[in-house]
Parts: sequence; C-alpha cells; structure tokens
Amino acid sequence: MRMAFMVRTSERIAGVTVTPVAFRDHPLLNTVGVHEPYALRTIVEITTESGVSGVGETYGGTVHLERLRRTADELAGMDVWSLNELIARTTRALGADTTGGDGMSGMVTGSSTVDRVMSPFDVACLDIQGKLVGRPVSDLLGGAVRDSVPYSAYLFYKWAGHPGQEDDDWGPALDPAGLVEQARRMIGTYGFTSLKLKGGVFPPDEEIAAVKALRKAFPELPLRLDPNAAWSTETSLHVARELDGVLQYLEDPTEGIDGMAAVARETPTPLATNMCVVSFDDLAPAVAKGAVGIVLSDHHFWGGLRRCGQLAAMCETFGLGLSMHSNSHLGISLAAMTHLAAATPRLTYACDTHWPWKRPDEDVVDPTPLRFAEGRLAVPTAPGLGVELDRDALARLHRQYLDCGLRDRDDTGYMRRFEPSFSTKTPRW
Amino acid sequence: MRMAFMVRTSERIAGVTVTPVAFRDHPLLNTVGVHEPYALRTIVEITTESGVSGVGETYGGTVHLERLRRTADELAGMDVWSLNELIARTTRALGADTTGGDGMSGMVTGSSTVDRVMSPFDVACLDIQGKLVGRPVSDLLGGAVRDSVPYSAYLFYKWAGHPGQEDDDWGPALDPAGLVEQARRMIGTYGFTSLKLKGGVFPPDEEIAAVKALRKAFPELPLRLDPNAAWSTETSLHVARELDGVLQYLEDPTEGIDGMAAVARETPTPLATNMCVVSFDDLAPAVAKGAVGIVLSDHHFWGGLRRCGQLAAMCETFGLGLSMHSNSHLGISLAAMTHLAAATPRLTYACDTHWPWKRPDEDVVDPTPLRFAEGRLAVPTAPGLGVELDRDALARLHRQYLDCGLRDRDDTGYMRRFEPSFSTKTPRW
Repeated sequence: MRMAFMVRTSERIAGVTVTPVAFRDHPLLNTVGVHEPYALRTIVEITTESGVSGVGETYGGTVHLERLRRTADELAGMDVWSLNELIARTTRALGADTTGGDGMSGMVTGSSTVDRVMSPFDVACLDIQGKLVGRPVSDLLGGAVRDSVPYSAYLFYKWAGHPGQEDDDWGPALDPAGLVEQARRMIGTYGFTSLKLKGGVFPPDEEIAAVKALRKAFPELPLRLDPNAAWSTETSLHVARELDGVLQYLEDPTEGIDGMAAVARETPTPLATNMCVVSFDDLAPAVAKGAVGIVLSDHHFWGGLRRCGQLAAMCETFGLGLSMHSNSHLGISLAAMTHLAAATPRLTYACDTHWPWKRPDEDVVDPTPLRFAEGRLAVPTAPGLGVELDRDALARLHRQYLDCGLRDRDDTGYMRRFEPSFSTKTPRW
Repeated sequence: MRMAFMVRTSERIAGVTVTPVAFRDHPLLNTVGVHEPYALRTIVEITTESGVSGVGETYGGTVHLERLRRTADELAGMDVWSLNELIARTTRALGADTTGGDGMSGMVTGSSTVDRVMSPFDVACLDIQGKLVGRPVSDLLGGAVRDSVPYSAYLFYKWAGHPGQEDDDWGPALDPAGLVEQARRMIGTYGFTSLKLKGGVFPPDEEIAAVKALRKAFPELPLRLDPNAAWSTETSLHVARELDGVLQYLEDPTEGIDGMAAVARETPTPLATNMCVVSFDDLAPAVAKGAVGIVLSDHHFWGGLRRCGQLAAMCETFGLGLSMHSNSHLGISLAAMTHLAAATPRLTYACDTHWPWKRPDEDVVDPTPLRFAEGRLAVPTAPGLGVELDRDALARLHRQYLDCGLRDRDDTGYMRRFEPSFSTKTPRW
C-alpha cells in the first residue's frame, strides 16, 4: 500500500542531536562483573521546524550510538505525530544491521534492535507532542491513573569504592549486614516500600541469608531477588524453596524461556523476567510455555512509551503481571518511566530504578520536578515530559564522556582487571 | 493506589448528548433473519467546558441506549485526555449490569459490555483531542501509514424490497446471477477490489455455487464468505474443500472457539472471526487452541479506537491477521473506522463496510469528506474525525427513530412475520 503522511510544516523534524554522556557510578556487583566508574548514556534532542524541542535518553555504547546517529539522519522532515513512521524510518536506517549492540554488558541480548534504537526518538516526539498540546506525556498515553508512581529500593552488593580510589559514601555491602544498612539508608532517604536485591554475585546460600536478613529487618516490605539467570533449574528451585513465602517474586533465576518454564512448573513463587521476554517476539512462546508470571517492561528496549502501552495491554490480556526494569539512568529516563507507569492501569508492582546510585549533582535536566516521597515519584504535570534539558550540564557530562575513556559498558572486563580468573559461565551455580 | 487526574478546566466534559436515530435499510438476508426497514444507531456528542465538541456512533437498542445514557451522566467533569478514566467511569456506571444488550440481533453476544458502551465516548474524546491539537484522529493513534483505506464490497442475498413496499432500487439477489449483478453494480460505483458474501442463508451448496459464480465473473478479486456460524464442523469442512483456493478466507463457518479450532485443524483455508473472538478475554483461549487466523476487529465492541490499536499489536505479536468487521452504520463510524485502519500498520485485508446499503441522503454528518475511489476511502485530514455533525440531519433521523416504531434490532422477528416457521437453530446445516 502507498505510504503517505499528512504533515503540517511546523511539526516536522528540523534537527536531531545525539550526545553521548557519562556519569559517575559505583562499583555495584552483578553476575557478569562490576559497574565501571562511569555509566554511559546517550541523550537525543529533536527540534521541529517551529522550534519546539523534545528529549529522549538511551544506552551508551559505540554500536548503539552509531545506530542512533544513522537513524537521526533519517528523521529530517518526519512529522512528530507519525510514530508509526518512526518505526518504518528506524527499520530503514538499520537495514540488516540488527544484531548485537545491546549496551547491557551481555545481560539482555535478545531485545529488538529496531525497538531499542527507536525508543529515545519516540520519547522525544511524545515530549514535543505534549508541549504542542500543553499536556503531560501521561495524557498522550491515555491519562495518568495515579498521581505518583511507586519505585522499589534497588540494593546491590558493592565494593567500598572503586579500586585505587577512596571509599565512596555508600561504603561496602558484601554481606547481609551491609545490605541491611544500605537498605536502611535508601529507605530513609526515599521512603521506598519495596526492596529488590541484585543477586547472582555470591553463592546462593549467602544470598538466601541476605534476603532473610532483609526480611527480618523490614518485616513489612515486599522483597525481590534477581540473580540475572546465574542459576541452574535445580539451584533456582532450591532458592525458591528456601525463600518460599518470603519473596514477592523471583526475577530471572535461570536462563531462557524453557529454563524459566521448567522452574515455573515446580514452584509457587511468581517468576519475573527482563531477560527471557525482552521483545514482542518472545511473548507467544513465553505464554505458550507458561515461562513467566510477570514481565518487567522497559521502554528503552520495548520500542518506547507507546509500544510499552501495547505490552501492558498484552500482559493484562494474557494474564501476566507487569512491572518495570531499570538500568543506570538519568532524569529524562526517570521522567519517561514515570509518565508511562502513571498511564498504565494494571501496573502490578513497584518499578525498579537505579536513581539512588546517581549523584544528585550529575544529570542533564533540572531535577526539581523529580521528587520522591514515601517511595513514590510525583508524576510531572508540566507539558511534555516535564523536565527541561540543562545544556550546560549536558555539555559537562558529554565532556566527562570524552575524558573518561569508556566507550562500551564492560562489567566483565572491569572485574577481570582485579580478578583475572573471573568467569561468566552460565549457570554459575 | 490513589486515583488522581490533572485537569485543565477547558478540557473537561461539560455535557454529553445521546441521540437514537433510524435510517432506512434494505431487506438484507442473513442466518438469523432479515434486516428490518430501519437500522438503529445512537449518536453521542460530547462538549467540553471550552465549547469544543466531538462525536461518536454506536448501536441502537433499548438496553444499550439506557447504558449509554447512564454512562453519559458519569462523564461530567472528566478530562477528554483521560481515556483510562473513561474505562473506570464506564465500569462504575454499569456496575453489575454487564450482560445482554449486544444490539446485533444475537450474532455477537460475547463482547465486553464495558468496551461496547465506552466505545462511542472514546471516539468522541479523540475527535475533541484532534480538534484541540489541530490534527486528524489518525495522528493520535500513531499516524496514518496510508492515505486511503481499502474496503470490500459487502454482498447480501436480499429480497426485491420490503414486503408490502415497492421493490428497492437494488432489486432481488437470491441466486448466483443476482449476486453477480449486485457485485457488478457495487464495484462500478465504488471500485471495490475485494468481495465479501454474507452467507448462511441458503443451503451450503447454493452458496458454494454463488461464490464460484463470483470467482468466474471477477477472476482477480479476493473473495470471502461469512455464514455467521450457520454450519456444523463437517459442513464447514465440506465448504472449505469445495472452495479450496477460491476464498481469501472463510469467516465464522461454525460456532465457538472449539468449533472453529476443529475446522482450522482440518483445512488450509484461513479462518476469520468476528463471532468467537470478540473481546480481550477471548484472545488467550483462541491463541492456545489455534482457533482462528484472522481477527475482524470492530471498534464498536472492542472498546474504541485506542483499544483496537492494542488489539492490532496483539494480533501482530501472536501471528494473527487483522481486518475489520462492520454493521449497518452512518458516516461517523465510517470516519472512525478509516482513521483507525489508516493508523494500523499491519492491516492485512480490506475492511468490511455496509456503506453502499445506506441511502446517500440519510446521514448525520456532511458526507463530503467520505470519498471512495478505487474501493478505497481517503483518510479525512481535517482536525479530529474530519466529519461535522449536521444538526438538522440528526434531528430528521431522530424523528425517523421516534416515528418508525423500532426500538431493538430483530432480524428474526421480522423474518417470522413472513415465514412463521423460520428457525435459528445452530448449526442450521
């Protein structure tokens, strides 16, 4: 069929900038290694012919960055209301270049490259639409059904500081007591009412003990454990049994749809995933096999906010729970996640966020609208995303990107500088 | 969680009018009877506090009409951007009153009452949103991916005219020759390039002969046959075998998800449905059982345009084709269907429409923007739906509703006035 688009000149895209940035990160441990001293992100800014601009945020990484730039070049003249056309143009820009470049240190490898690349542009177009209409992005997604969004505390095993540097102000967390202390501080600052522990770092029995210590210290708070598929089916079932009735859900205990289905068949503990169901192509097999109970959506790899709305409808239709995954991110992503979550009626769990691990003085937006209270973030009410790009701050974090020398996230390589024998074999236990 | 809505005064709903109308219809035959002399519809008009108005169109029928009025009373003060809130308010207005009242003479009984009732209000809100933004509704659904939408010729067996009245200008179509003549005229006027025959009226072998006559007369055009579940599994397979390679798809040959699945297992002919998958609740069992290959969506019973966009995404995700069902309708519905179809990238077949059976001089909108050429309707480009309510015409068709005496569609009762022994047993053959 013939493609055609009805365009008013003023809402055409006149320019797109793509800016890689780096912000300081802590030595947070996971099953593939440890966070490097800087986290990488990319900020896109779209400006229309009428001078309205909108922003989006996505992964860093050289392959992804090059794809973003190639796609940005395809967007000149596109109407910001033509989100279907954005998919077509992204697909065209990528051509056959659709594998690799996930930007997540090998932890989420199966997501759709088109969806991953188009996501920040989708967010930026919605930011512009909101500004044109004078409404928050949540309204463009069907309207907020809650005026604040619940997030969970994201606990990590961590070193005291990056090797060769002073201890950071969080200090070490390498045992149950350290995690309880970390949780206490995070709850004290943000008021979180759910706790998530990133596991897959220590032998499962140590992590079971950590979860039990958290349960004892915070008897009322829902708990989650996420070992990033570090375990065999058998180990997964051992942990599930040991933590029966303790976990709200167990996240990606083992690898793949078949592996998760094997675990799901044998435990009443709900299983969540942001590793085996990461694209629309994964849904039919996951549903057919009963692999997971909860999908942790993420607009950064599910194709932006509108596509995540479709995912939410699918989860509701096929009886799956829904919550939200996070990587290290800045304020644009937090605003976008919050609008999406606000406009998702059946958001069944508090969302993940790495926000507490980011220094308050490092961002690309004025953080004033991003206020946490009682573990919840108020949904911004200004037109669009409700956050404004701070160009000086963007320049600083871009300069930091240039200076830091990191170009691709490599938790494993960084770990091996200190533990040369570090292995990522799967399953580890 | 606490519900809250951020509302700018000017975009709140100030008033809703609900107006039943009747327009003249032809004695079109189907498996439950024959169309009465008037088709019933309901027009809703929403006006905001700032004076912007939008329209929607839905079924007539007393139960549905009362539900629409009850829901309309709940909408005062609602923000027209809060489509999630529309679902909540409709649900509240209906309470436990959620069965019956399908308005389709018993042919589509399993659809969701909330979705059916909210649909015209969803369309009217989107019409207003489009006017506020200065963009066609298709843009609010992700943007048109085609500037015109293909529709199919909808052929019916029919009597020469309503009993006791003069023959209508279409004349009779009770055999293959009559249907070929009907198709020829319809193609001549509209340029349709697909043909659909409403079957389930005569014994299957007569309908097979009719389809073969259409194939002979129009060797290039895709053909469909829809007996509205009049057949047993065995009869369905007999027809499928006889028309193997002739039909683009076979629509609802038999009743229910299990019945359709039994047919689907034994024939390569794709099966389509607007009878066994008519609500989101039907999707999981239909997918699990492989009951259908194509869903015929219909925003009138799938909860409006936004929910149909979600359905389209599900069909793509779960490997189902998608096209669009129609009942007798006026221009508001045609405009809404066209915006939706234009913004649905994977619309895999031409849509159904009863449009040729409506007299050109009977409508509630100025029909100028609704132009067919080569079987396609140009997507309206004016803000909103792109059609304007003609209040004089609305008053005329409302007067006709009051005068005609019909209050509920009853194809079966009307048929029995002339054939008292007419039976609707299922399966008929």
